Amino acid sequence: MKFKFAERINNVRPSFIREGLKLSSQSNIITFTAGNPAPELYPIEELSKATEKIYRNEGKIALAYGSTDGYLPLREKIAKRMQKKGIKCTAADVLPITGSQQGLDLAGKSFLDKGDLVVCENPTYLAAINTFCAYECSFLTIDTDTEGMIMEDLDQKLSENPHAKLIYVVSTFQNPTGITWSLERRKELLAIASKYNIPIIEDDPYGELRYEGEEIPPIKAFDTEGLVTYLGSFSKVLCPGVRLGWMIAEPETLHVYNKIKQATDLQTSTLIQMVIDKYLEENDLDERITVLKDFNKRRRDLMLEQLEKHFPEGTQYNRPEGGLFIWISLPEEIDTAKLVPAAINSQVVFIPGEPFYPNSSKKNKMRLNFSSVEEDRIIEGIQRLGKVIQKNL
Amino acid sequence: MKFKFAERINNVRPSFIREGLKLSSQSNIITFTAGNPAPELYPIEELSKATEKIYRNEGKIALAYGSTDGYLPLREKIAKRMQKKGIKCTAADVLPITGSQQGLDLAGKSFLDKGDLVVCENPTYLAAINTFCAYECSFLTIDTDTEGMIMEDLDQKLSENPHAKLIYVVSTFQNPTGITWSLERRKELLAIASKYNIPIIEDDPYGELRYEGEEIPPIKAFDTEGLVTYLGSFSKVLCPGVRLGWMIAEPETLHVYNKIKQATDLQTSTLIQMVIDKYLEENDLDERITVLKDFNKRRRDLMLEQLEKHFPEGTQYNRPEGGLFIWISLPEEIDTAKLVPAAINSQVVFIPGEPFYPNSSKKNKMRLNFSSVEEDRIIEGIQRLGKVIQKNL
Repeated sequence: MKFKFAERINNVRPSFIREGLKLSSQSNIITFTAGNPAPELYPIEELSKATEKIYRNEGKIALAYGSTDGYLPLREKIAKRMQKKGIKCTAADVLPITGSQQGLDLAGKSFLDKGDLVVCENPTYLAAINTFCAYECSFLTIDTDTEGMIMEDLDQKLSENPHAKLIYVVSTFQNPTGITWSLERRKELLAIASKYNIPIIEDDPYGELRYEGEEIPPIKAFDTEGLVTYLGSFSKVLCPGVRLGWMIAEPETLHVYNKIKQATDLQTSTLIQMVIDKYLEENDLDERITVLKDFNKRRRDLMLEQLEKHFPEGTQYNRPEGGLFIWISLPEEIDTAKLVPAAINSQVVFIPGEPFYPNSSKKNKMRLNFSSVEEDRIIEGIQRLGKVIQKNL
Repeated sequence: MKFKFAERINNVRPSFIREGLKLSSQSNIITFTAGNPAPELYPIEELSKATEKIYRNEGKIALAYGSTDGYLPLREKIAKRMQKKGIKCTAADVLPITGSQQGLDLAGKSFLDKGDLVVCENPTYLAAINTFCAYECSFLTIDTDTEGMIMEDLDQKLSENPHAKLIYVVSTFQNPTGITWSLERRKELLAIASKYNIPIIEDDPYGELRYEGEEIPPIKAFDTEGLVTYLGSFSKVLCPGVRLGWMIAEPETLHVYNKIKQATDLQTSTLIQMVIDKYLEENDLDERITVLKDFNKRRRDLMLEQLEKHFPEGTQYNRPEGGLFIWISLPEEIDTAKLVPAAINSQVVFIPGEPFYPNSSKKNKMRLNFSSVEEDRIIEGIQRLGKVIQKNL
């Protein structure tokens, strides 16, 4: 029996990260593919206590349907955190979602008709590419340097494509490159988006994980015209397994997201929203983030040190000021996708650069996660990877 | 700032149920709009114990990303339950989702291109209409009698529209009508779907809630060709606030759903899947369902009795053998949508029939939920509604 599926099916690829996840659960392989915080730091005890209280005191509410709008006390706490980052908002501007990934889906579903153009960094978050692809868009990729998109390139390309529908950016500790947009570029982006009246989707799961350098407010903090939809996540600062994130947008846009979320999954789990709300009430998330940052920084530094030792001459990589990833350029003759089988054979796995490029890709890139791998395994894994690369030079 | 949203936005309406939900949390209004089991029977204590064990023994796994495929022990338990209902399946055929509502979205997203036709009962589940509408389909509605779709009408309409993309049915205790498809019609539907090679989406959230009459296996149980995607849910037999359901389909179709789910929200909450799995391990869900059925049946009978007393002559309704709803036809001159403001004024709210009709609607229908309203409030609420109707005769 062969059914006729929707055309969009052909645009969507199984995610390399998700396939890597399966490998990691199947064996003792060292996986640099993940994007989660260190499991040894999950606040299990604290979440357990918060959950117990919710069941005990508010069980009937937590286990029932709730409104699509989301649980008000949680939205108030999120709004407060966002205000501290410079975003003017109240609970009414916040929509809880099942991870910021769902935010990408709701944004794509709300804005994209078949054939529409999405403007993005090159490379960009691979699962965003896939999510938008499901709405049969094309991508207009903008060259980037160490401060974000190059504005001349953006303006030039938008002048040729003024009806582009969305601008998608990961503004801080970008995935995969680790780049953080400069303050100036953030403001310039808003000016250009305003000129063409194109909404910006600012994806910011890593913004709070800064290990050095000075904090820069999100683009949304400078958004006086309601151009920006901000996507936040508890996955990188708390834990990803609960699936909880949020969207912030101006009222008309948020209303559309809300209506579309109703038609997608009704609402985000009431129980999960209430548990995380209780956790935030009883714990200092900022304190936790301080610990997390120290921890992640050590792993970043260790990985950088090991890369220096074991990767071949001609290898280039940045020293990301935060986030979870190191983005590596190997000597140009190496196709990292072709290294994957040999790497798996050596019990180590990484993500080749190719799926991060919406259109034509560079072959010699790889993304390595340092936050979720124990220190001895970072040492062992980078050694193994180094050997695999040396063999293929 | 006015953005250009996707065209699909115009097809999606805010759900009447969701709006009713907001009313119910805002005041002391008696709401017959819900679709949840009685909150006083939520297994709070048991879920709390299960959750505590998961945190204590498997916290690091529960709070981490998991595969899109879902948590294997849960999938095994679901497969076993489904086997008892006559569905041949293993864990490999089961995909956990965030409520069966997400199954409708994933099915729509996987099958529907703009302009495609969805075949459905008339009336049908209003949120399915909205979900499919987001994929810019049209609806081919089939007349139904007390045994399900009328097969001559289906065959005739499909012969005129052989490229219809999906057949959507709520086979047991249909929403909103309460109708259960007869065994014969189930088999005939499969034969016709096979003739035109059209996949069937069988939505079955209420199937286990039978209060009288003989059990009939789901359509999926007779599906030898892999035509049927079965949607199951914990919302009506356990609690809706966790957001957990499942899809069962033949391998190629399930693979597409899985790929599309990756691109939609990555995965269903690991924590929720593990908690419900632990609950199922330590408790007898069938025992709970027995209690639930007694409880719901009493409320159904009470509502029927009150309708008899307080609704005007010429009112018609069925006596549903299970499920959560009574579907009412008022005298033809009454437009139930117009009664809503007066009803809310009298502190009672119901769902008018109109949003359950994908195309042209009948004006004199209303859906009442009996499972979630306490007995004294059923009595009070039906009295109030009766008065509102009498006033508008």
